[in-house]
Amino acid sequence: MGERKKAAIIAQSGTMDKLFSVLTIASTAGAMDIETHIFFTFWGLPALKKGGLDQAGFPADVKHLEDFMKQRMQKAKMPSLYELLKMAKESGEVKIYACNTTMELMGIKEEELIPEVDTVCGAATFLKEAIDADITLFV
Amino acid sequence: MGERKKAAIIAQSGTMDKLFSVLTIASTAGAMDIETHIFFTFWGLPALKKGGLDQAGFPADVKHLEDFMKQRMQKAKMPSLYELLKMAKESGEVKIYACNTTMELMGIKEEELIPEVDTVCGAATFLKEAIDADITLFV
Amino acid sequence: MGERKKAAIIAQSGTMDKLFSVLTIASTAGAMDIETHIFFTFWGLPALKKGGLDQAGFPADVKHLEDFMKQRMQKAKMPSLYELLKMAKESGEVKIYACNTTMELMGIKEEELIPEVDTVCGAATFLKEAIDADITLFV
Repeated sequence: MGERKKAAIIAQSGTMDKLFSVLTIASTAGAMDIETHIFFTFWGLPALKKGGLDQAGFPADVKHLEDFMKQRMQKAKMPSLYELLKMAKESGEVKIYACNTTMELMGIKEEELIPEVDTVCGAATFLKEAIDADITLFV
Repeated sequence: MGERKKAAIIAQSGTMDKLFSVLTIASTAGAMDIETHIFFTFWGLPALKKGGLDQAGFPADVKHLEDFMKQRMQKAKMPSLYELLKMAKESGEVKIYACNTTMELMGIKEEELIPEVDTVCGAATFLKEAIDADITLFV
Repeated sequence: MGERKKAAIIAQSGTMDKLFSVLTIASTAGAMDIETHIFFTFWGLPALKKGGLDQAGFPADVKHLEDFMKQRMQKAKMPSLYELLKMAKESGEVKIYACNTTMELMGIKEEELIPEVDTVCGAATFLKEAIDADITLFV
């Protein structure tokens, strides 16, 4: 691909399907040497609490499919969300940001977060990273 | 940052949490001198009616958290959605577009919209703005 | 616009309103000679099954508005989702990708998909297209 490429993702959702998309994109991008920045905000923030990713469920619309899909994902030996996050981080290309406004709003403290979080910051810090990204997504 | 930067956001959602994200990004980007264009379409359009932004609620999944979160946001002295929109506009960098197809579909007339709307137009007009934006998001 | 422009859309949602946005953007972009790549994944994948697009409904939040809105859309002579997809393809600018991981997960076979699908592939193949796109969206 020649020059260095970059992706910036805002992870605003806390449901399992959306977090799965965020982390699949991140681990795939990481494996392709794309520098990837993910800003977890609002409903996405609790996913960064210890044990949070694996508590995420399906949205109301498709709640009745949750058990079925989770079984299929296990049967297909797909990694759990936290395993996906760790795979993404192992590439060395993926940086995790936790939104400080959301933390204040939800009363979540830094020591409650998983060690894979790189930075606690606000939207402005993240937009500075996103402004020269090749791929920008809001999930 | 050197050259002029630009963001284009499609605001398709009408729930409070998503509108909060759109307007936080917009007011932050505006404050960073990023030219920001927001196209309100489908469920996002009613938010541009007079009083519409402050009627927005939480999605079904998290409806039970609405009162709690709204109280926390007030306690943290966070601006209301309409205040956020006005802050964004005050930067002089943020332009608001209302989707004309949605207006026809929902039977909403131009005189029902808040004065902060800059342009009533279709998707093609907005895509012309988005095509050279540095950040593109669908919320 | 001078040089060739390109859009890349991840269609992760299966609800009618989101698919309508994806396909409106795609048919508009196609008509503007913007090369448009759409990756249907997770809840978006069943929309590519024969008859799938026209089975899509509204999300739980706004389910009560479904009949009303569908009637308004018909009255306004708006195309159905499948018609929109075909219009988008007729521009010659729009390429449809089906996510192979989702197909495996949901037990959907290639012969069940509509003929408008161009490629069955994984996230990496799609990210290679997205990395030099001018517009990137996650819907």
